Formats: sequence, structure tokens, C-alpha cells
Amino acid sequence: MAAQEAEAAVPLKLHGAAMSACTARVLTCLHEKGLDFEFVPVDLFSGEHKLPPFLSISPFGLIPVLQDGDLTLFESRAITAYIAEKYKDTGSDLLLTRHEAGPAAAAAAVKVWTEVESQHFNPAIAPIVYQYFVASMQGGSPDQAAIDGHAEKLGKVLDVYEARLEKSKYLAGDSYSLADLHHVPYTYYLMKTPVAASVVGGRPRVKAWWEDISGRPAFLKVAQGMEFVAKEK
Amino acid sequence: MAAQEAEAAVPLKLHGAAMSACTARVLTCLHEKGLDFEFVPVDLFSGEHKLPPFLSISPFGLIPVLQDGDLTLFESRAITAYIAEKYKDTGSDLLLTRHEAGPAAAAAAVKVWTEVESQHFNPAIAPIVYQYFVASMQGGSPDQAAIDGHAEKLGKVLDVYEARLEKSKYLAGDSYSLADLHHVPYTYYLMKTPVAASVVGGRPRVKAWWEDISGRPAFLKVAQGMEFVAKEK
Repeated sequence: MAAQEAEAAVPLKLHGAAMSACTARVLTCLHEKGLDFEFVPVDLFSGEHKLPPFLSISPFGLIPVLQDGDLTLFESRAITAYIAEKYKDTGSDLLLTRHEAGPAAAAAAVKVWTEVESQHFNPAIAPIVYQYFVASMQGGSPDQAAIDGHAEKLGKVLDVYEARLEKSKYLAGDSYSLADLHHVPYTYYLMKTPVAASVVGGRPRVKAWWEDISGRPAFLKVAQGMEFVAKEK
Repeated sequence: MAAQEAEAAVPLKLHGAAMSACTARVLTCLHEKGLDFEFVPVDLFSGEHKLPPFLSISPFGLIPVLQDGDLTLFESRAITAYIAEKYKDTGSDLLLTRHEAGPAAAAAAVKVWTEVESQHFNPAIAPIVYQYFVASMQGGSPDQAAIDGHAEKLGKVLDVYEARLEKSKYLAGDSYSLADLHHVPYTYYLMKTPVAASVVGGRPRVKAWWEDISGRPAFLKVAQGMEFVAKEK
């Protein structure tokens, strides 16, 4: 019992920044699971993440990083997969292993649509968010040609989603999963840009899906901190 | 027993093309697991993968696709993750769940370095292979500026690998895993280009790692079919 109590006293520790979409991805996962954790803010403006102490836990100099006792993990999607698996019986069933349609089929669909986010959705949406928010914050102006090119790519990806969401309410099936969750932070920022009206608004099932997954209590907690500011306090 | 026999009679079915790096990723995984499967060649030159019958199993019109009974999976990394998990007790221990250093730590490292391949390595190496092989095959000439830019990015990624491989023989620890496997097909093509000498040859630990992971019997079987040809027979 004493050992268990000692173990329970060391919470998960997440290093990140509230405005970072990848940090928000992990925060949303932690809240879906109802887990206690310690948040360690990383000062992106001082370049703390590019210096040796931080590089020793995150060799690419990127946030977020999760520490779970002696274990250190980086890459937001590896962290959410780790949390979803370690705490598979707690909170939301993000891997659909408890799914009544059969865990094998549902869990396989989570894998497929998680990869779709990673390989198709993210490479299209991330540059748009970068142009509208990061480029402006850094004193530059958005590159409209880059925005238009990536908005067209994103539209093609979302055409596939629109067809998929005709067959099931969520990407991996009738229940919310990690595959949906991974999309939320970048889409949240995209919805604040002029691109949103055509790319999301023009696809009714994608729009309904977005309204559903962005309204979950776990993400609403995270969204409060998601604002691009020129300098974090 | 009769039901089990009937089930065993339906092998895994992989749709793909031998020259495709993503198909080779899944083939290598199937061989590491020692699994029987049926290979269904997709004729990329006729555009078969962009037509409705194929789009019904692969909505982005991409190969490979795995069918396991009623289940259909696309995205090579989702397929390998599915195979590695379903057959975790067969063949190579690709998820390191049998690892003596403790399954949690080893399996977490597999997740991290699998994501590194997906988010950092692949976006740097894939355009180089595309320029040298696909552009030429399609009658164009390689874009040297694109090659140089991506070779520089790839070098920076491999600097992190060089440091990592000082600490452990393979990316996720002392044993070969899915994280290493995912790198093999694209690196195999890269090694046939002029970029290999500096990018891989200049990093001794990366070079030793490559020689090790590319020499495994499972991949040697797959490499036999990996050749860019202007038209598949």
C-alpha cells in the first residue's frame, strides 16, 4: 500500500505551451481520461525549448513532452496513444477497445483514421494555421498563395471525410475516439480564419462533426488557453 | 475446430505494388511475423487505384490496402500497427511487448520513434526519392533545389538519430522494432542515390544501423521486388 501511495503521489508531468496545437492535443486527451497532471509551461519566446536542458528530454526541441515517472515521451500523437492505452479502462474509450461492435474492427478503424489525420489532414491544415497566426505574430504577413494551395488540399481531404461521415457519426465509427480528438486543436484555429466558411462550412457533415467534437467538456477546458499572443506572460 | 479451420482458410489479402515503398513497409512487417498472405497487384499505370472499385476500399486512392476477413485497412502505418498488435505473440516482437526491460518503457519508445519517422523522417526523405525515381520515371528531370533542401532537412533529423543510436542499438531500445522497420523502404531507395554518401555515410551509427536493419531476412525478400520500372508487367 505504501508503495502504491508513493507511486500515486508522482503525477504525470506535461511540458508545453497553452497556445500550441500539439500541446492542446495532449491536454484534451488528459482531460478526456479525467487524469491529474502537472503542467510545466515552456517559454517559447525565450527559446527555452532549443537549449540543452530541454533538448535532453525532447531531441528535436519541440513541445509537448510527457514525463511519467522515469519515462519520457515526446511527439504529441505518441503521447496520446500512450495515455489512451495505459488508461484504457478510465474515462473516454478513446481506442474503442470497449466497443460493442467488436474491439478488433473498431480499434482497427481508430488506427486507420488516426493515420489519415497524421498523413493527410495535418500536412494540409498546419501550414494554413501557421500562415494566419504564427507568421503574423512574428511580424510577417500571411502568404496568400500558400494558404490557397493548402486550403485546396484540405478541401480534398475533407471530401473524403464528408463521405465517411455519411456512414458513421465519427471517423472510426459511432463513438468518439482518438482519431477525432487528434483533429480538434488545429481545426479550432482554422475556424477563426476566413478559410473556415468554404472548407468546413461547405461540407455539412464535416461541420456537424466539428460542432460535436469541439463542444466536448474536455476540449472546452483546453480551448480557454488557446490564443496566439505575441509574448506569453 | 471446423470454424477455426474455416477462418484459417481466409488469408490476409494485401493490395499493393512491389515498387511502392509503402507497400514494402507492410510486406516487410508480414514477413517479420512469418504470416501467410495473398498479394493482389494493383496496376498503378492504368490508374486502377483512382477508379471507383478501388476507391471503395481506399478512399484516398492510395496503396497498400489490407483485407482481413471483413476488415479493410488503408494507410501503411495503420496496417503494420494492426498486424503487430494482432500477431504480437508471433514472429518478431515488433511492439517490444515481450521486452525484458519492461513492456511499458519499451513499448512507449516504439510509439515515440514510430511518430518520429512519420513526422520528421518521412517528410524529409520522401521528396528526395520522389525526385530521383518518380520524376525521372514520368519523363521529367529531378529538381536539384528540392533535393538539396530536403537532404539538408534529412541530415538534421539523422543528427538526432546518430545521438540516439549512441545510447541504444535500435531506435526504441536494444531490440529491433516497428520503429526501425518503418524506415527501411524509403532508405533503401535513398541508398541508391548520390545523396546517400553524405547523409547516411557521414553518420557512422546511422550507417551501422542501416546495414543491420536492411540485412534482415524479412526485408531481403521484399527488396527483390523493389525496382522503379516505367511500366509494371
